[in-house]
Amino acid sequence: MLHERLPSHLLENAVEEFSKLPGIGRKTALRLVLYLLRCEESEVEDFGNAIITLRKEVKHCEICHNISDNEVCPVCSNPSRDASVICVVENIRDVMSIENTNQFRGLYHVLGGVISPMDGVGPSNLEINSLVERVNKGDIQEVILALSTTMEGDTTNFYIYKKLKDTGIKITTIARGVSVGGELEYTDEITLGRSIINRLDFTSTFNQ
Amino acid sequence: MLHERLPSHLLENAVEEFSKLPGIGRKTALRLVLYLLRCEESEVEDFGNAIITLRKEVKHCEICHNISDNEVCPVCSNPSRDASVICVVENIRDVMSIENTNQFRGLYHVLGGVISPMDGVGPSNLEINSLVERVNKGDIQEVILALSTTMEGDTTNFYIYKKLKDTGIKITTIARGVSVGGELEYTDEITLGRSIINRLDFTSTFNQ
Repeated sequence: MLHERLPSHLLENAVEEFSKLPGIGRKTALRLVLYLLRCEESEVEDFGNAIITLRKEVKHCEICHNISDNEVCPVCSNPSRDASVICVVENIRDVMSIENTNQFRGLYHVLGGVISPMDGVGPSNLEINSLVERVNKGDIQEVILALSTTMEGDTTNFYIYKKLKDTGIKITTIARGVSVGGELEYTDEITLGRSIINRLDFTSTFNQ
Repeated sequence: MLHERLPSHLLENAVEEFSKLPGIGRKTALRLVLYLLRCEESEVEDFGNAIITLRKEVKHCEICHNISDNEVCPVCSNPSRDASVICVVENIRDVMSIENTNQFRGLYHVLGGVISPMDGVGPSNLEINSLVERVNKGDIQEVILALSTTMEGDTTNFYIYKKLKDTGIKITTIARGVSVGGELEYTDEITLGRSIINRLDFTSTFNQ
């Protein structure tokens, strides 16, 4: 209904473009566009160009496939990181989340998604072969799988495991359990169950 | 914290620009930017250019100051609209809301905001003088004030009223009351109070 009422085609066009973004409906799109209309012309140009330039010029690290300004990303080119451990993640947001913990000193491998036949994503659409190459080539000692615990994530985990198991390297997965500060009462059964099965020696948690 | 972890300056720049939009925080900005990164380059160019073009080329109707592709907007140039009634609104979104009701056949006047000394918005920053000119010049019979019921809106209403009262034209304001389908129990006291004070003859509501 809103569709027919916009008084300008330029406005309609901009709202249309904003509505394509995930989680942005037509009402929000209109609000954002009207905000931009009130901004200075140079600010709006900066906005538009920042996005166009990003898409045009952004590179992906040729080692871990994370987003990077150069051929090799700051993590992979950092000599103080432990190059013998690779943490496999779905996307660059996961890299940032793990980096923010300050608990991981190894390198990453960004798959670019998980195997999902429903969405037409097969192993060849992901950076799985390059992971196998990295493992075969380098002095990798451990691969940590940190994909989401969905059916797709589990499938991908298992696919990678099958590809890597003959190399004899250690393959681990991140711990799932009750979150720190979380109450047992409000934790779902699967998570709570896993946290009991994978219980730890109490002394090993000192100094964490 | 997230700030220091972005692996690319281009990415940082785009996220920064998106975060300037109202209601978009850094996390949402990052999500949107990562979405755009997965789009085709041409799609992202369309997105950026739609916004830049809008800001550069959009016009405002020289009569009612609504957004328009031409000098005069579709509403003002429509001969079947009642040019003797002007509805005064804050912004173009209000025009769209009222248009969507299909209940108003007159013209609009978009003030571009309300008087708000706190935000440095005085009467001269708004399209109030042009409203007075319109009233003085044309065959206007009624001005409907449809500003928000905030202190700023009330101040602006009163300012316009003072400017127009000597012209002798009818000055009205939109009805406030319990929304259609709304329950008395959940209506705030001020709205409910107003709806009682401004009660209508029952027969006048037939065929609404």
